[in-house]
Amino acid sequence: MEPLRAKPVSASRTEHVQIVMPGHINGEKRLFGGILMEWIDVTAAVAARRHANCNVTTAAVDNLQFKAPALRNSTVVLCAQVTHTGRTSMEVRVDTFVEALSGEKEMINRAYLVMVALDENGAPAPVPQLILESDEERQEWEGGCRRRELRAQRRQQKY
Amino acid sequence: MEPLRAKPVSASRTEHVQIVMPGHINGEKRLFGGILMEWIDVTAAVAARRHANCNVTTAAVDNLQFKAPALRNSTVVLCAQVTHTGRTSMEVRVDTFVEALSGEKEMINRAYLVMVALDENGAPAPVPQLILESDEERQEWEGGCRRRELRAQRRQQKY
Amino acid sequence: MEPLRAKPVSASRTEHVQIVMPGHINGEKRLFGGILMEWIDVTAAVAARRHANCNVTTAAVDNLQFKAPALRNSTVVLCAQVTHTGRTSMEVRVDTFVEALSGEKEMINRAYLVMVALDENGAPAPVPQLILESDEERQEWEGGCRRRELRAQRRQQKY
Amino acid sequence: MEPLRAKPVSASRTEHVQIVMPGHINGEKRLFGGILMEWIDVTAAVAARRHANCNVTTAAVDNLQFKAPALRNSTVVLCAQVTHTGRTSMEVRVDTFVEALSGEKEMINRAYLVMVALDENGAPAPVPQLILESDEERQEWEGGCRRRELRAQRRQQKY
Amino acid sequence: MEPLRAKPVSASRTEHVQIVMPGHINGEKRLFGGILMEWIDVTAAVAARRHANCNVTTAAVDNLQFKAPALRNSTVVLCAQVTHTGRTSMEVRVDTFVEALSGEKEMINRAYLVMVALDENGAPAPVPQLILESDEERQEWEGGCRRRELRAQRRQQKY
Amino acid sequence: MEPLRAKPVSASRTEHVQIVMPGHINGEKRLFGGILMEWIDVTAAVAARRHANCNVTTAAVDNLQFKAPALRNSTVVLCAQVTHTGRTSMEVRVDTFVEALSGEKEMINRAYLVMVALDENGAPAPVPQLILESDEERQEWEGGCRRRELRAQRRQQKY
Repeated sequence: MEPLRAKPVSASRTEHVQIVMPGHINGEKRLFGGILMEWIDVTAAVAARRHANCNVTTAAVDNLQFKAPALRNSTVVLCAQVTHTGRTSMEVRVDTFVEALSGEKEMINRAYLVMVALDENGAPAPVPQLILESDEERQEWEGGCRRRELRAQRRQQKY
Repeated sequence: MEPLRAKPVSASRTEHVQIVMPGHINGEKRLFGGILMEWIDVTAAVAARRHANCNVTTAAVDNLQFKAPALRNSTVVLCAQVTHTGRTSMEVRVDTFVEALSGEKEMINRAYLVMVALDENGAPAPVPQLILESDEERQEWEGGCRRRELRAQRRQQKY
Repeated sequence: MEPLRAKPVSASRTEHVQIVMPGHINGEKRLFGGILMEWIDVTAAVAARRHANCNVTTAAVDNLQFKAPALRNSTVVLCAQVTHTGRTSMEVRVDTFVEALSGEKEMINRAYLVMVALDENGAPAPVPQLILESDEERQEWEGGCRRRELRAQRRQQKY
Repeated sequence: MEPLRAKPVSASRTEHVQIVMPGHINGEKRLFGGILMEWIDVTAAVAARRHANCNVTTAAVDNLQFKAPALRNSTVVLCAQVTHTGRTSMEVRVDTFVEALSGEKEMINRAYLVMVALDENGAPAPVPQLILESDEERQEWEGGCRRRELRAQRRQQKY
Repeated sequence: MEPLRAKPVSASRTEHVQIVMPGHINGEKRLFGGILMEWIDVTAAVAARRHANCNVTTAAVDNLQFKAPALRNSTVVLCAQVTHTGRTSMEVRVDTFVEALSGEKEMINRAYLVMVALDENGAPAPVPQLILESDEERQEWEGGCRRRELRAQRRQQKY
Repeated sequence: MEPLRAKPVSASRTEHVQIVMPGHINGEKRLFGGILMEWIDVTAAVAARRHANCNVTTAAVDNLQFKAPALRNSTVVLCAQVTHTGRTSMEVRVDTFVEALSGEKEMINRAYLVMVALDENGAPAPVPQLILESDEERQEWEGGCRRRELRAQRRQQKY
């Protein structure tokens, strides 16, 4: 098999918009955390597919910090991109913003997900390397290395 | 009240991605038309909000032609932009693509929606004029004039 | 194969009722356009199945004009019937009414959909001819001829 | 307050159609009982609103017997009508059919629901008397009397 | 085939919690009956699976009496257990409570469902006998015998 | 205001069951990560309400590691309990199991969520202290202290 061609971060960039409807909010008139997690997962999966050109599955989610609530009728924008790659896994960052009617955006959540590439039999498949083109992308890659180590530590903790 | 500042088409551009899940398909293993219409409506509403900077409501939908089906597990990408404006209404075009795992996109639907801007009391509100920056945008504007006329004709047909 | 027996419009008549729940409304307290489109699509599909006696898929939707909003807790009634037939396609009209608690109905939307009949392999299948029994049905048939031509014109516009 | 005018059974007749989609079925490829119950509840509520001309709430459901399954892609038809009335409550019968593509209907479920009429403050409100116009309607009324007694007995059983 | 080992009622006990969100309520600000029925069905199915160790399907639901409404933002708790067994069927009782923030529980619904065990081909399969360990469980068993008879009577009524 | 009475871990224990239906799975026939996250969030919220006796909102989610997939028709069981408390926040652990028809459970996910207690105006409210009754609960408390520190570090990283 020929080696996979490396791809830039920009090839995976993905945007997803939503309007917070009554069916999305909890008893406190805020966007229900579980619904936001569902949108984050879809957006991350498309970003990972765009990098890996194959099916993917979610292996881990970390660092979900809800900084501010999204209220009913808010426009919500999710932006995803691949930030780190392993042999068969990708780390995807998903930033969620509330976009005011005036156009101003406030970040309400930043999530990192680990997605695993799958071949046609559902087994892990190799992914292209990531080409880093800016300082910000290089910093994210280093952060991705540290987060990967933390996840490995957590996995070793028996439970 | 000071006049609204005109805005370019690009200010309204909106992208929405989805993965076709089993809950989205009909008995024929294709994306259910009604679900696609729901996604089209949300994407169009965000594009219109980005142009008008206020709430909007859907007044009409025309030209929904399903050129090809989206099958289960497809990545679906919706791209919206404002193509024509009236005093309080905007025409929004939403193109829907199936994005193959290889990255190739095939258009499966093109829809034009009329969205009306609403002020805080739910009454129609004026919208900014549209700045046309390319030949394609100017052609769409002319098409929008014709479609507007057709809609007016249809409204006059009693029923 | 023996020819299909022609069927009257009345054989396809289909009614669907809903109550507008909080999960169906948008930020403006009105029935969300995308949800209504989903209901229209199901109702049209059943009407087309009743005419064609086989599976169907949505090929086009036109003339969706939202004349009035449906508010939360409204009873919504959708009435569908086949209005025109081609060799393998049917035009279905779906009228949507808000039914007040007093029983009065107000039409809020009229939609025409093109549904294609499918055989067991998912290929287009012939449909029975339509028997027109009233002046209103004959007028709708003629309208259907014009709408068909308009759709053909739109398909030819390259994009 | 003037007395409410009695209304015939036919004034409450309500039809609701659905197509069984993948999101409606359980692990056994059959329509999930809970989804059918949701459709039954909406259809009964509209029938009761048509009789009482006011809001209603579900007080009891009995006699849900699933005689046959509805499989994926089936057309499902629900038919409701008021069968018995008390001072502020109505018994509604909802029959659920699978409608084959050939047009043949098989009943898969018959349910009786008790709906209570509500005034604008959410308190029970009087309902019109029911005009019985056929032997079948008179038999249902008598059955309704017996079912009412059975429900009263069950309510008295402490638990 | 060796006989199935009898199992105590406690082996089937199942709890399910929910928070009433805006998407779950009807126009009257109360939990929509159809949504509650869906939750009851899932909880009963898990209880029946725990007793029978195989797939199950809902055959009947009776005695759904909504004693009090659940309002938006309420915590709802459903508790299910097998109360009676036949050769291939089980009766499951599902009690639904509103749990106040103070911790107090009020029962709002008690339902009995008949679930049928299914083998791998979807045919009815034998279920273990039920070991009754308390007076309350023995009383429920006797009630289950009576309810079974009532259901048989209803089935014989032609319609 | 009198001080809140400390409560044991057991007071917050919460169980939630689900059956994986076609509407819950992704293109890979596995439970969709976003749906599982929604169930985790509801179960955690009920556990936190049981400890705090007031409304709660999700502030953070960490350590979501999907160890094994849940396939269609699986019984999924979620078990939540409070593991650590601050002044107005609680850490809740949610373990998700697939329960085989034979009754064997396999853990597929362990998540820690931070929930904040809210008073009637939506402002953070003090929560009762946690009474630790076993070595396992004391170990979890210590783990909770470390996870809290890690979260504080992450919050300080500007982005």
